[in-house]
Amino acid sequence: MKLLGISGSLRKGSYNTRLLEAAVGLMPEGAELTLIGCGEIPHYNKDLDTDNKPEAVLQLLQAVRYADGVLFATPEYNYSFPGVLKNAIDWASRPAYKSVLAGKPCAIISASPSLIGGARAQAHLAQVLAATLSPVVPAPPFLVPMVQDKFDAGGLLIDEDTKRRLARYMGDFVVWVDRLAGR
Amino acid sequence: MKLLGISGSLRKGSYNTRLLEAAVGLMPEGAELTLIGCGEIPHYNKDLDTDNKPEAVLQLLQAVRYADGVLFATPEYNYSFPGVLKNAIDWASRPAYKSVLAGKPCAIISASPSLIGGARAQAHLAQVLAATLSPVVPAPPFLVPMVQDKFDAGGLLIDEDTKRRLARYMGDFVVWVDRLAGR
Amino acid sequence: MKLLGISGSLRKGSYNTRLLEAAVGLMPEGAELTLIGCGEIPHYNKDLDTDNKPEAVLQLLQAVRYADGVLFATPEYNYSFPGVLKNAIDWASRPAYKSVLAGKPCAIISASPSLIGGARAQAHLAQVLAATLSPVVPAPPFLVPMVQDKFDAGGLLIDEDTKRRLARYMGDFVVWVDRLAGR
Amino acid sequence: MKLLGISGSLRKGSYNTRLLEAAVGLMPEGAELTLIGCGEIPHYNKDLDTDNKPEAVLQLLQAVRYADGVLFATPEYNYSFPGVLKNAIDWASRPAYKSVLAGKPCAIISASPSLIGGARAQAHLAQVLAATLSPVVPAPPFLVPMVQDKFDAGGLLIDEDTKRRLARYMGDFVVWVDRLAGR
Repeated sequence: MKLLGISGSLRKGSYNTRLLEAAVGLMPEGAELTLIGCGEIPHYNKDLDTDNKPEAVLQLLQAVRYADGVLFATPEYNYSFPGVLKNAIDWASRPAYKSVLAGKPCAIISASPSLIGGARAQAHLAQVLAATLSPVVPAPPFLVPMVQDKFDAGGLLIDEDTKRRLARYMGDFVVWVDRLAGR
Repeated sequence: MKLLGISGSLRKGSYNTRLLEAAVGLMPEGAELTLIGCGEIPHYNKDLDTDNKPEAVLQLLQAVRYADGVLFATPEYNYSFPGVLKNAIDWASRPAYKSVLAGKPCAIISASPSLIGGARAQAHLAQVLAATLSPVVPAPPFLVPMVQDKFDAGGLLIDEDTKRRLARYMGDFVVWVDRLAGR
Repeated sequence: MKLLGISGSLRKGSYNTRLLEAAVGLMPEGAELTLIGCGEIPHYNKDLDTDNKPEAVLQLLQAVRYADGVLFATPEYNYSFPGVLKNAIDWASRPAYKSVLAGKPCAIISASPSLIGGARAQAHLAQVLAATLSPVVPAPPFLVPMVQDKFDAGGLLIDEDTKRRLARYMGDFVVWVDRLAGR
Repeated sequence: MKLLGISGSLRKGSYNTRLLEAAVGLMPEGAELTLIGCGEIPHYNKDLDTDNKPEAVLQLLQAVRYADGVLFATPEYNYSFPGVLKNAIDWASRPAYKSVLAGKPCAIISASPSLIGGARAQAHLAQVLAATLSPVVPAPPFLVPMVQDKFDAGGLLIDEDTKRRLARYMGDFVVWVDRLAGR
């Protein structure tokens, strides 16, 4: 099983990106998580959405198409998820109902310095994934509040409880992908 | 009164941009609406959010700072508003609670080829503007469903009912700006 | 396959209830839709949520437990769905993550006199069903805008396009229930 | 200034109700907060929304009409606010755009045993109050996460930081009410 991970945070040392990196090492046997960036994708513009799409868009579309599922890691900006992530999804959602995202199983994880942990960002992202017809794993939201206490200075996830929860959530996600595939 | 208009659609000939252009000519006396683009603003990245911000960001911040209110025109992409517009707001919302958007009166208009007319996009945008502490005019949402019937081939708003409604909404917005300013 | 239908509108002659009644006759072969009311369920109160629950609550819990999936019909009140429907879901969602709704496939239909057709009500309801871990069918939203033109004076759905769309949506729902059941 | 407080939780000893009670004693000078229940209001039914409304509805309508602003205290049920509170708002929002809630300044507080503290419930409630044209105070959300540590056994708010924050939020609310009244 090949899964694709996309982080909505572009800064070097982003906790959300590090959470994805931690997830790579916590996947169930037989499942592989590969990460792709979305920072090079230009702002969506219908005039650019032609047979001659920007290179970064083509890479995203191909990566999503060949993935069995997509895992989003999102920070919370202004009670929602970052524009850069919305932008990537908007590119990947055309044409409506027949896009590479349509029917693609998804999951969402968030890290945040606050207590709320990204819960509102996830709510908005899940609504958008309903629009793209991408079934989100039916599991309690995976949030890492007060994230600064959970990683070491080198960016390694060291909190054992978070690791356990993340491994379990990845397990739930893999079961969801299998289930939707009729396996 | 100086108001700022921002369109969330980048394509040439965008109905939302045209709606803003129509609004320019329908403002109450004494109020002036100026448009600014957000397509040149790079994806938000905390590493770039320094004392040396990108030029397009500085222009946006200055325009918002000197405006008495901000009018957003947004299409609906995937039940929400475009990433490029979220991105502009994310840049304009730092530092939290003390940004150029904090306390700034706002209004939202939408044009869409569908019957829904952007209602879900507006709901998400309004939630984000709650986060930036930007009070949105308390008025029924301004939506232009089936927009393709409302403009002529040259991009001019020709539907009389839409013009009347837009003029009234601009009037409501100006009253709101005045009211929050204690005038 | 046994499906349960719940209407969020209590008035006699409700278009949403009639839409459910129309759905009863448009189910795919092998699937049966039974309706249950939620107007007798008292307001949720944790003090009443004991081993001795109100009778109407027990009936709801049992009906949901034995259903293979739940179909909600909801009007739009104030950009959201009615309190009476939220109330029924709140009762049916305890204990969290282990309730009769957890894992239960769901679908949502709406009728409305407006153009928007209940799209915002559905968005809120879908978020709540994410909380109850009830996977909503990944299909374009089923909305009946300008509903007053679609029924005859006796409350019969007579609009052929709406009937076709409803039958197709019911088909999508049944496929979803089967798929989640591993059939 | 007369303000009205409504709790969305019906259980005896509800932390949200207690939070309202604590707010009564923390109001700025010249402002008075009175509480009203919403548990006796029947489920909204258009057939009952006549010239002869249920008594509990009439009491709510009158209380809202004569209040200068409304303060909602809401727990979070299933990522949203309770049905009983939505129900009260639905009754108080007719006729649309001309109801007792239209133009009424509002504020929202939440207590919750979780870390998230009701943030998602508040997001839904704020969207509904946009529909009723009730301007919510533009301030950071007032949340009391891990509420069980903040009250004593007798139901008295004893956490000094929460008291300070609540007093400040009440101050912000009163300023908002004055500002919208042109004072």
